[in-house]
Amino acid sequence: MLYSPSRIFFGENALTKAELYLIRLGTKPLIVTGKSSAKLSGALDELIPILKKAEQDYAIFDRVQENPSWDIVREGARFLKDAQCNYLIAIGGGSPIDAAKAMALITANNLFEEENLTPDKFSQTLPLVAIPTTAGTGSEVTQYSVLTDTSTGIKAGFGTELAFPTLAICNPRYTLSLNATITLHTAIDAFSHLLEGIFSNKRQLLLYPLIQAGIEAIMKNLEIALNSPNNLQARTKLMQAALYGGITIAQTGTTLQHSLGYPLTTHFGISHGLSNAIVLRQVMEFYYPYIKEELDILFSNLDITREDFENWLDRFPLKAEFDLSEEFIESHIAEVLASRNMANTPIKVKEEDIRKIYKSLK
Amino acid sequence: MLYSPSRIFFGENALTKAELYLIRLGTKPLIVTGKSSAKLSGALDELIPILKKAEQDYAIFDRVQENPSWDIVREGARFLKDAQCNYLIAIGGGSPIDAAKAMALITANNLFEEENLTPDKFSQTLPLVAIPTTAGTGSEVTQYSVLTDTSTGIKAGFGTELAFPTLAICNPRYTLSLNATITLHTAIDAFSHLLEGIFSNKRQLLLYPLIQAGIEAIMKNLEIALNSPNNLQARTKLMQAALYGGITIAQTGTTLQHSLGYPLTTHFGISHGLSNAIVLRQVMEFYYPYIKEELDILFSNLDITREDFENWLDRFPLKAEFDLSEEFIESHIAEVLASRNMANTPIKVKEEDIRKIYKSLK
Repeated sequence: MLYSPSRIFFGENALTKAELYLIRLGTKPLIVTGKSSAKLSGALDELIPILKKAEQDYAIFDRVQENPSWDIVREGARFLKDAQCNYLIAIGGGSPIDAAKAMALITANNLFEEENLTPDKFSQTLPLVAIPTTAGTGSEVTQYSVLTDTSTGIKAGFGTELAFPTLAICNPRYTLSLNATITLHTAIDAFSHLLEGIFSNKRQLLLYPLIQAGIEAIMKNLEIALNSPNNLQARTKLMQAALYGGITIAQTGTTLQHSLGYPLTTHFGISHGLSNAIVLRQVMEFYYPYIKEELDILFSNLDITREDFENWLDRFPLKAEFDLSEEFIESHIAEVLASRNMANTPIKVKEEDIRKIYKSLK
Repeated sequence: MLYSPSRIFFGENALTKAELYLIRLGTKPLIVTGKSSAKLSGALDELIPILKKAEQDYAIFDRVQENPSWDIVREGARFLKDAQCNYLIAIGGGSPIDAAKAMALITANNLFEEENLTPDKFSQTLPLVAIPTTAGTGSEVTQYSVLTDTSTGIKAGFGTELAFPTLAICNPRYTLSLNATITLHTAIDAFSHLLEGIFSNKRQLLLYPLIQAGIEAIMKNLEIALNSPNNLQARTKLMQAALYGGITIAQTGTTLQHSLGYPLTTHFGISHGLSNAIVLRQVMEFYYPYIKEELDILFSNLDITREDFENWLDRFPLKAEFDLSEEFIESHIAEVLASRNMANTPIKVKEEDIRKIYKSLK
């Protein structure tokens, strides 16, 4: 199944082109964002005059941190209700967008006091506009919200079709201010999504042109964007790739790579993109025998070998210092195996496989 | 803007995979089809048991001819109402799907007696399932309905987002029974859509990977499907290309090529696909100077020259006998210029341009 219902505006002036659709979504938006990206990116400065012109009052909730928790989401939902907002505009990386999805659902379904928020409790939502300021997450076109449960320290979340943003407004200019580290880590996140679209047992023919174009775009433009942060063309290609990655995982889900990466983020504070990068090579090696045909076609279409691919990865500083003790590994195997992402893995993953991959990182 | 809200099921067993979504759309479908394709393709034989299992009664309206008229659409809408159906399943080429879109809108908005059916009169519709049995039209994922006005003989129609099918169920097996002529003409229709996605002044970066993959799929597989009609892989690639063509024109609209082709269909009975084919080379030549960069990138990515492209086209019997008199040409210039498709043309087209292209066909 291919289902991608978000209305996408892409390129310079994306917000202007989306204006008439945006202001019709409600009468008072809650702008959901982190501490600084909405302002730094320039997105907020473009948005406010549009709301003013439409004579729409708005509220801002800017307390969404990286890897947002259910607690902050509940706080945001209460803020949304108190401010009497009736639609949401999330500006930022995956964190504000994912948080806004959950806030919209909590509010629309009146689940403020609910402990276990599972998708079966959602029957409606509020309209959501997603304005990414990174080129990575793809959350602007997915039904997923990845949230951390602070009581258990486990990164989980949910997926529901209600959570697809109504509008995705993607202007590569908003990513010009990103520093090299964020540019790199988010690009590798998008890269993971595209690869996982092939790894996943929900892989599908219709997505392959997007996957291939996305991977090619990142391989050709990531270094350019790192060396020349203001190169709009390279930023445009990275944002295009991130969008294709989002459209892809919305259909295929993510896989072992994300499952292995989550504990590295929650326990060692390694960014989501870097966590994916750290296990990328191992996961590719692990899956390769089972999806050799698809991966070989990909490499051949890109005119590269698997070795070229690995050499390309090696060019980037994708390492992190962390102490992966035996105890840590043993205590997280069950968590990895139980994660939602494992549903799409092309082969049955055993405890021993997880152990082996984690040990190889030491 | 990229907006493609139809839920797409693609490949063998597409209908089985769509089953649960389909039966939830209503309690009694009207099956809209032509005289024979629903049966020949095997689609109807797969559908009926699904409806029976769900204990859903159904009605069949099988009177949709090629290039359907508003008259037959009105008749179908009355039939739908009398049979108390509450959703539609269109099986066939573009004609039944386009007719079903209009029937759904007439019924849902109670416009049975209305003379001028323009999109501003549509505020709701009935759910529509599109099951293509050709690989060409793309109507299964577009908002367009192309209908002929029998009083004027003009092929026109409408576009409204309400007309996007809810489900598109695309099984390449349904195209195995198509003869060579229909296979060829419908493939060239899809090919036109993909090219027009570049010609159109609404062309957009996000679509290019799909356009390129679609054009490549047709260039590599059309001859195979013509020589080996039962080659499922070739049929699959052609259906994939048609779907990409539909997704493309849903964003970009069609252009001069369709405008020039319509009078050839209504006055000389030349199939829609062949009409497009007849003017394809001339339209490419006419537009080329204005979109040289985009077309050159396309040819380069496909590892071909423009000459290779034209030589490839020449391999197929894409000719028709018709008498294009000066009188015919002069009396249709205004119709071509006034057609809806002209809104997306990259340069201002003059009377003289139309005259010249038509004359070159003589």
